[in-house]
Amino acid sequence: MSSHFSVERLRSFTAQVLARRGVPESDAALAARVLLLADLRGIDSHGIARLPMYVEMLETGEINPTPKPRVVRESPSTATIDADNGLGLVVAPKANAVAIERAARSGTGWVAVRNTNHFGIAGYYALEAVAQRMIGWAMTNTTMSVAPLWGAEMMLGTNPIAVAFPAKEEPPVVIDMATSVVTMGALEQARRAGNTIPLGWAIDGSGELTADPAAILNGGALLPLGGDREHGGHKGYCLGAMVDILSAVLSGANWGPFAPAFSLPKTHREPPVGKGIGHFFGAMRLDAFIDPDEFTRQLDTWIRTLRATKPAPGTRGPLIPGDPERAIEAERLARGIPLSGAILEDLRQLASRDAIEL
Amino acid sequence: MSSHFSVERLRSFTAQVLARRGVPESDAALAARVLLLADLRGIDSHGIARLPMYVEMLETGEINPTPKPRVVRESPSTATIDADNGLGLVVAPKANAVAIERAARSGTGWVAVRNTNHFGIAGYYALEAVAQRMIGWAMTNTTMSVAPLWGAEMMLGTNPIAVAFPAKEEPPVVIDMATSVVTMGALEQARRAGNTIPLGWAIDGSGELTADPAAILNGGALLPLGGDREHGGHKGYCLGAMVDILSAVLSGANWGPFAPAFSLPKTHREPPVGKGIGHFFGAMRLDAFIDPDEFTRQLDTWIRTLRATKPAPGTRGPLIPGDPERAIEAERLARGIPLSGAILEDLRQLASRDAIEL
Repeated sequence: MSSHFSVERLRSFTAQVLARRGVPESDAALAARVLLLADLRGIDSHGIARLPMYVEMLETGEINPTPKPRVVRESPSTATIDADNGLGLVVAPKANAVAIERAARSGTGWVAVRNTNHFGIAGYYALEAVAQRMIGWAMTNTTMSVAPLWGAEMMLGTNPIAVAFPAKEEPPVVIDMATSVVTMGALEQARRAGNTIPLGWAIDGSGELTADPAAILNGGALLPLGGDREHGGHKGYCLGAMVDILSAVLSGANWGPFAPAFSLPKTHREPPVGKGIGHFFGAMRLDAFIDPDEFTRQLDTWIRTLRATKPAPGTRGPLIPGDPERAIEAERLARGIPLSGAILEDLRQLASRDAIEL
Repeated sequence: MSSHFSVERLRSFTAQVLARRGVPESDAALAARVLLLADLRGIDSHGIARLPMYVEMLETGEINPTPKPRVVRESPSTATIDADNGLGLVVAPKANAVAIERAARSGTGWVAVRNTNHFGIAGYYALEAVAQRMIGWAMTNTTMSVAPLWGAEMMLGTNPIAVAFPAKEEPPVVIDMATSVVTMGALEQARRAGNTIPLGWAIDGSGELTADPAAILNGGALLPLGGDREHGGHKGYCLGAMVDILSAVLSGANWGPFAPAFSLPKTHREPPVGKGIGHFFGAMRLDAFIDPDEFTRQLDTWIRTLRATKPAPGTRGPLIPGDPERAIEAERLARGIPLSGAILEDLRQLASRDAIEL
């Protein structure tokens, strides 16, 4: 029941829709490239499905279409950027470029960003550094949906971490993961299909483990990676906290339950404790540590060694971080990106309103 | 059945035992300080319980008592150090000091270390940066004990990550966690007590989930944080991989299954792919990003806000990362460090051999 669209077509559509809301053309093209990488890599919840929300936030003035980001503090290897409430899809790639430029000069570069908005997938930014033969880092805090371990309410976002490493003949190692067990998308999918969810994914409004995917709509919350205490939920909570502090406390953005909600209902706490949400980017030049050729050759061997691990029963053995997304990307580049249901309907309405061909 | 010893007494004992094996006195004192912080903070498996193993490795010449670490590559914000096969407890604090010094100069400092050995607890190093009002990072790869998700054999270590943040009136936020669900210590404890272990901690030699804590002695392995695929085991595997690559591939140390075994049986793979094991340290100056007073005050508020989370049933609410270790440290500073059983017996034998009072 889904139609397939080429990535070029969806990029062009996205750029036109954003430009129609006052986003300068080159920025709109950049935003479209960032947004569609999520769809290409199979992280559909963070891709063009969000375009209607970005459009709404531009139309209501919640996001500034023509931001003037500025460096508010810096050192040879760092910068903090106030992103002037721009689209994360526009200001985040520019901030990440500053991290890469700092690394070119000082060996490593680290940039905290405040007064920004949701930025697509963290992997985009880490891969930008890899394209420069650097190690790339990206994190962001997000609207709350996760309970800290032993909490009975949402306090942190799914706060993703991406780190990517360039190899030589092998494709790069690309880590891109939420710090919760699963994301809201997995619960939504179960709810629509009428399925229960495994214990350890979420709690209900009273703080008890739940198998009901709808419990999160009634005061429940996602659990941090690890789930309960016995399975290491305190560690996932630690990681989510780390991302929140680096992205938002270090930059002067809204942290924890104060991070502005991306969509209705706007349940975040007020008054704000900072500006917008926050990101944290890093880039590390290989030759600041080791002969780059030695590193990439060794990483090739690392990848081949891990691939050759004795497989667990019923599996074909371990994957390398980035494998699943790369496989989907190859397929979708060839066959197009599938869109269906409510998302396709939303995009068709946008197309019709703007008289732009989808 | 345990005896309590003051930390000063155990530090002095440790320093004397190491000095007796040719470790220079100031290095022995430093090593004792690092080692005993593990006992003080309740991470008993990484503390003085390991002294007999360090002694054995010094006596057999596996560890160099008088290393001359040298910087083999550097940039304004980085260095790679060859630690000359010294005690990790000695060379790691010195390498971490280089990261802190680079941060003082360039905003941040990042140091990869090769040709080193086990370094105690990662938290020690992150706290050293916090003592300088910086954000501290520490990682190390370790002897393999963890299977990658969908693997049926050990390939990675428990590869810990520590990150610590200074607050103003509140104590620092101190994250210090293995990237596996649990460590070998937890399995060992269950095995001695005759208990089963929860499903999701470990696999047996055929790669199936197991409740038998002894399965790891017969070809089994620990699972990465998250456990199985459904609960996010791929994410813990990603984190373990990240630590392995940053600590060992980036420095030129032995990674994955090649990381030298710390104790018998020496099951690691050979020939070596690098030198020793590897560490990775980082330090970030607060004022390279934000007014330090603004950061620490905001982190105080972050801590108080998270503490005030509605508690889950049967709990007193979320802890702040570092709380449990700090509580144990306060108690052990007051009452001493409890030692018992085989560990106490080992230390008494050492004391008797060396004619040093325990």
